[in-house]
Amino acid sequence: MSQNKNKIINDPLHGFLTIPSELIYDVVQHPYFQRLRRIRQLGMSDWVYPGATHTRFHHALGALNITLKAMESLRRKGVDISEEEFEGAALAILLHDIGHGPFSHTLEHTLIQGVHHEDISTRIMHRLNVEFKGALTIAIRIFLDKYEPKPFLSQLISGQLDMDRLDYLLRDSFYTGVSEGIVGGERIISMLNVADGNLVVEQKGIYSVEKFLIARRLMYWQVYLHKTVIAADSVLVSILRRARMLATQGHVLGNYHPLLHFLMNEINEETFDDEALDLFLALDDIDIMASVKQWQFHTDPILSTLCKRLLYRKLPKVFISNMETSPNLVAEATEKAMQKFNVSESEALNYFVKTGILENHAYKTEGGGIRILRKNGSVSDVAESSDNYNLAALKETVKKYYLIHWGK
Amino acid sequence: MSQNKNKIINDPLHGFLTIPSELIYDVVQHPYFQRLRRIRQLGMSDWVYPGATHTRFHHALGALNITLKAMESLRRKGVDISEEEFEGAALAILLHDIGHGPFSHTLEHTLIQGVHHEDISTRIMHRLNVEFKGALTIAIRIFLDKYEPKPFLSQLISGQLDMDRLDYLLRDSFYTGVSEGIVGGERIISMLNVADGNLVVEQKGIYSVEKFLIARRLMYWQVYLHKTVIAADSVLVSILRRARMLATQGHVLGNYHPLLHFLMNEINEETFDDEALDLFLALDDIDIMASVKQWQFHTDPILSTLCKRLLYRKLPKVFISNMETSPNLVAEATEKAMQKFNVSESEALNYFVKTGILENHAYKTEGGGIRILRKNGSVSDVAESSDNYNLAALKETVKKYYLIHWGK
Amino acid sequence: MSQNKNKIINDPLHGFLTIPSELIYDVVQHPYFQRLRRIRQLGMSDWVYPGATHTRFHHALGALNITLKAMESLRRKGVDISEEEFEGAALAILLHDIGHGPFSHTLEHTLIQGVHHEDISTRIMHRLNVEFKGALTIAIRIFLDKYEPKPFLSQLISGQLDMDRLDYLLRDSFYTGVSEGIVGGERIISMLNVADGNLVVEQKGIYSVEKFLIARRLMYWQVYLHKTVIAADSVLVSILRRARMLATQGHVLGNYHPLLHFLMNEINEETFDDEALDLFLALDDIDIMASVKQWQFHTDPILSTLCKRLLYRKLPKVFISNMETSPNLVAEATEKAMQKFNVSESEALNYFVKTGILENHAYKTEGGGIRILRKNGSVSDVAESSDNYNLAALKETVKKYYLIHWGK
Amino acid sequence: MSQNKNKIINDPLHGFLTIPSELIYDVVQHPYFQRLRRIRQLGMSDWVYPGATHTRFHHALGALNITLKAMESLRRKGVDISEEEFEGAALAILLHDIGHGPFSHTLEHTLIQGVHHEDISTRIMHRLNVEFKGALTIAIRIFLDKYEPKPFLSQLISGQLDMDRLDYLLRDSFYTGVSEGIVGGERIISMLNVADGNLVVEQKGIYSVEKFLIARRLMYWQVYLHKTVIAADSVLVSILRRARMLATQGHVLGNYHPLLHFLMNEINEETFDDEALDLFLALDDIDIMASVKQWQFHTDPILSTLCKRLLYRKLPKVFISNMETSPNLVAEATEKAMQKFNVSESEALNYFVKTGILENHAYKTEGGGIRILRKNGSVSDVAESSDNYNLAALKETVKKYYLIHWGK
Repeated sequence: MSQNKNKIINDPLHGFLTIPSELIYDVVQHPYFQRLRRIRQLGMSDWVYPGATHTRFHHALGALNITLKAMESLRRKGVDISEEEFEGAALAILLHDIGHGPFSHTLEHTLIQGVHHEDISTRIMHRLNVEFKGALTIAIRIFLDKYEPKPFLSQLISGQLDMDRLDYLLRDSFYTGVSEGIVGGERIISMLNVADGNLVVEQKGIYSVEKFLIARRLMYWQVYLHKTVIAADSVLVSILRRARMLATQGHVLGNYHPLLHFLMNEINEETFDDEALDLFLALDDIDIMASVKQWQFHTDPILSTLCKRLLYRKLPKVFISNMETSPNLVAEATEKAMQKFNVSESEALNYFVKTGILENHAYKTEGGGIRILRKNGSVSDVAESSDNYNLAALKETVKKYYLIHWGK
Repeated sequence: MSQNKNKIINDPLHGFLTIPSELIYDVVQHPYFQRLRRIRQLGMSDWVYPGATHTRFHHALGALNITLKAMESLRRKGVDISEEEFEGAALAILLHDIGHGPFSHTLEHTLIQGVHHEDISTRIMHRLNVEFKGALTIAIRIFLDKYEPKPFLSQLISGQLDMDRLDYLLRDSFYTGVSEGIVGGERIISMLNVADGNLVVEQKGIYSVEKFLIARRLMYWQVYLHKTVIAADSVLVSILRRARMLATQGHVLGNYHPLLHFLMNEINEETFDDEALDLFLALDDIDIMASVKQWQFHTDPILSTLCKRLLYRKLPKVFISNMETSPNLVAEATEKAMQKFNVSESEALNYFVKTGILENHAYKTEGGGIRILRKNGSVSDVAESSDNYNLAALKETVKKYYLIHWGK
Repeated sequence: MSQNKNKIINDPLHGFLTIPSELIYDVVQHPYFQRLRRIRQLGMSDWVYPGATHTRFHHALGALNITLKAMESLRRKGVDISEEEFEGAALAILLHDIGHGPFSHTLEHTLIQGVHHEDISTRIMHRLNVEFKGALTIAIRIFLDKYEPKPFLSQLISGQLDMDRLDYLLRDSFYTGVSEGIVGGERIISMLNVADGNLVVEQKGIYSVEKFLIARRLMYWQVYLHKTVIAADSVLVSILRRARMLATQGHVLGNYHPLLHFLMNEINEETFDDEALDLFLALDDIDIMASVKQWQFHTDPILSTLCKRLLYRKLPKVFISNMETSPNLVAEATEKAMQKFNVSESEALNYFVKTGILENHAYKTEGGGIRILRKNGSVSDVAESSDNYNLAALKETVKKYYLIHWGK
Repeated sequence: MSQNKNKIINDPLHGFLTIPSELIYDVVQHPYFQRLRRIRQLGMSDWVYPGATHTRFHHALGALNITLKAMESLRRKGVDISEEEFEGAALAILLHDIGHGPFSHTLEHTLIQGVHHEDISTRIMHRLNVEFKGALTIAIRIFLDKYEPKPFLSQLISGQLDMDRLDYLLRDSFYTGVSEGIVGGERIISMLNVADGNLVVEQKGIYSVEKFLIARRLMYWQVYLHKTVIAADSVLVSILRRARMLATQGHVLGNYHPLLHFLMNEINEETFDDEALDLFLALDDIDIMASVKQWQFHTDPILSTLCKRLLYRKLPKVFISNMETSPNLVAEATEKAMQKFNVSESEALNYFVKTGILENHAYKTEGGGIRILRKNGSVSDVAESSDNYNLAALKETVKKYYLIHWGK
């Protein structure tokens, strides 16, 4: 790599992040990747945890670094990983989230209907592959879990215990200040191994795996599914839905054409063409927040109310229960919203009152689960290896029901 | 404080931040203060340190917390601080940066001419004082260093060793990952005392003070005056200057009227009236970044070029020297810029080539300096108390000269 | 407190530890308490985790500090704690481990038979109470859970979620470097409250409690019950048993009379008189390790072998199973030990081969359990409050069976 | 390396420490190296900083790890280091402190006269080289700075900016909780390079070097030369001197013959033969502390007084001044000590009153200094490269004069 290329990036979490090759350096410098600097990892979670302003850019570099360490550790244990595979897996993890749009999961199905961010990642990787003359071919195969000789490489990128999750748990804990998500990252990495081509965890690492699964579950309750985050997300989704409605009615909603395209047109699997992808790649959190700021002055009272509410943090309440929300409660909340905001019933239900389900599924065995390599060489699922009831319990999905309302 | 009011805020740096009173809670919730959530503490430094996305909101809360701890420690040493003074100093530190505009120091003299952010802070505090019916009167006097009975309260808020600096050094170190700025915050706080109404540091804290001053100096070189930050700042300033020029020529530059007001009018001490302050309070980093994103598509080639350069991180070079930049070098750089961007000489000098001075002044004795309380009860300046040449050396201003250019 | 008394102690874990009163300072300075500087918190765990050299002295000060913070937090919530009670609880936690002997739990029943360290703590506290003219009366009542008006004070000191456990989990994690034990200490403290005189955790703290219980369980497996620690402990116990046997036969085993008293006499509840307590208070880890070093040159081959094994870290193997160790395995191991060390069967069974049970009981409801204060004001046990199967699972005791042997 | 060999060691400071080869593993397991588990890194500093109980064992492993990382970084920059050299440098740093006796520097010239611990390290390395059949030959040459082809390897081990210092500054900061010593270790390592066979620091690392030097200077004042540490050290030295005096008079001073040998005989360069080395290798902190505990009951009043004073932390005062201690002050202190302890003048001067010099020399250019590699390829000394007066100031030795006395 030439001297001029900056090879080291400070990371308060992992120390120094290194960029292992010139190709990877060039991908990092690419506008598609630089765009991730403007997409926060945790969307509106800074409403609750003001430190949580970290970006997908930083997470992608962190996940890259953990993956490099994991592969180096596997190599030291005698696992064969060629230079091409090494770089391929590195690129796959680096780009795994490249398809995220503004506010990631929150708006995933609001701006575009029915196209998963991972499919967008794949399309962007194909574009980059053309631009870099095929250098990403292995990376794409690994990303799509189609690198047959060595499935463990794909499992490092995506699975129940992958380097993506390892970085985001540690990073989200670090930036929120919620210690519940701290896991022994280095320890887990040092326990990884490969058996029959699959990624496994050596038996002595079983407690670290358990800790990892529980940490993830706790982070869901404390951060990802935090009431205030649910509330802010819901207002943001309402704002975008209202804006789309107004846009299709001919209202002027700013002059940033990449965003207007997604407001004025129904973009779904069919209409999400190459031009739309270009415009999508010009979007990030900034555009949404700037719109919210502008729309606070919009003449439509619903739009302006919702925007002011979000900006000045006057959020709705969230009622959470282990049982399904009763129709009575919804009716009551709708009534209140109609009065409070002077809106019709359907407007209340479309923009102010919302019901939904929070699911917390700490561990799934489908798709491979987490394999434990026992001392005798046999491999079994972690939920069967453990000596206690905890891991089995983690397989249960915990469901809660929420109702978003605006007080009594 | 009522149960509903959220009294504890997570801070990955200090642990938990507490809001000590209902009044302070209400100020924190005020839109003026919430706006700081959208102004980053370090502007464009995340170009170099991707973790540095922390906000003035978080810093203000952190500085509040350190100030509370310092006052509690002083009280334990027998220093008299009444409840009103305690709350006053808390509000003063909380609001010390409330007058910052988008990208803080970078655009401080671009959006508004000749009005210092501290004057804006004062105006905003007066507004809040009216709104809160005089409850900020003592806070304002402390902020303005006019609280005569107890100057140490003002010195806690602003001085050579104040709680603002303590928080920002620690916080900026934390989020950038640059360990050079780590100081013994708790230790310094525990060494503070009051003599003759002035804030002093007990003699045994002298090494911690020295460490503090050196840490600050190193943070200037490594973070605040980092080449890439200088380069990005300079491009951002050029963008705003170009935009203002185009705006005065009648070009359309978006439709967010609070920003347009500052682009289309010359706002200075005289024209910065109450209405302008209202509009100023509707501005933050978001508006600038959204404009840059939009202006990348502007028909003016200079504006669009500068915006693309910033967004895609294709920044100018920075040449730094201990000697003043020679006119020859400037001429050469101008020539290059004219060719590279196809612009006139005056355009090159206005928007692409820039010279300036970087000053790093670790310790100033003017305005009080840092007072050391010796064991015999006498008080002297820290630079005279120390047993070595280091602290005297820190009084020297280090000057460097920079030239921003676009390569050879 | 007079100026000369050092009020602040550095703690890499909690920051600064403060000594809140002159009386507490004097207790800290007392030789009985200073003795804890020479008793490690984790005995021989530094064999596995070389950082784990921290002492009971440091833990006691750390637990004191957490308790002070908890009481300050409770007071802010309106819980009435008088100054005397505050100091009493502080002294109770400070002295809760004062009765520990050398190598704490490891040798607890080897040096003295049938006297629990908590009874010794009580006796020492009574002695101090005489010396300090009754100033520890409330502390003793709190320590013994006999402070009727306010049981929560005793529950802070000792219970399923007490400040002792909070400090040791955090401290042991910190010094071993095992992240599994990290818990949100500050968060838990901020969630504590009092209902009907009992310590409760507010409902929103339930995940932190779950994390706490799991962290404790994982620390048991990873640190407290680590194989190598079990092995080293077992050798140390054998050494002391052999030494006692030789001592009763008239062998010379050093010349430190406080230790000799416990080697040459059977000390139990009846014979543990005041003079024995004096001698006990002259014992710490140093005496045991110095004896082991000296006894490596002893003429008794069993004693010298065991000592050399321990010093040079040539430890036995530990076979762990979920099922009871079969008599066959024990017989085999005994045979091997007889050959390897040239000892009789009874010697092998007394000093080289050992079976035992490892119990890990994360959560017990007896004696109060952990009470959750629901938003509606009702109080219930945490294992019933949680929405998942995990906490119920934590009530199960996990038992493992071990066999200590010397290889094949 | 065989499966059974434990390759990873937890370090709360650096994360995981790895043992890179089987030879190094075997050296680590050797009793000579395991002995370092019982020698604390900072002697009696835990009197002031209770967390500072870390050992030379842990430091040696930490320094090994930093050295490995530095060599890996150099290799990535194209510096040629063969496998033999890599292992050689690793062994050299691992064993650099192997010659330390009990309480390291404190007793260095009390137990043995005129033999520096580095000479003892060399002798032990030669012994190990015989035992390991010549495998340490390169390591010894590197340790002795006689590995001519590549002096940078020796400079990594020992110099003004070596991996030993890097580890101990970070480690001592970590365990004492004194943040003043925190340096950017990873950053410094990443800035190392080789020019003309010498270790150099790349220009952009100059601030990190400055921080390193200042951190070291501050750690001297705050930790290594802390008053209470000076006081405790002085009492310990007096105890050993008194014990030697008594031993030569025929008094019985315990029965641990390795220590008795050094008490009863004058061991110096001539008499420090192979047998003495064997006995030396059986000594560690334990033997000294056990003796102090035992000697508190000795019939010699001076010895018992000193021992009790140390154990119960009733230490002398330390008067520190920038000027030489006046004979009057010494006379006064002697008079006081004679009265207080009922001793003769010569006894007072031998065991109770002490004068001395504290020297803090942050940076020495002799022996190579720290070389900076400028961007133009030239190499110069760091004190000449820096743009400020600080580094020049750091070359000055700061001297202070102390008097140890027992109050007025």
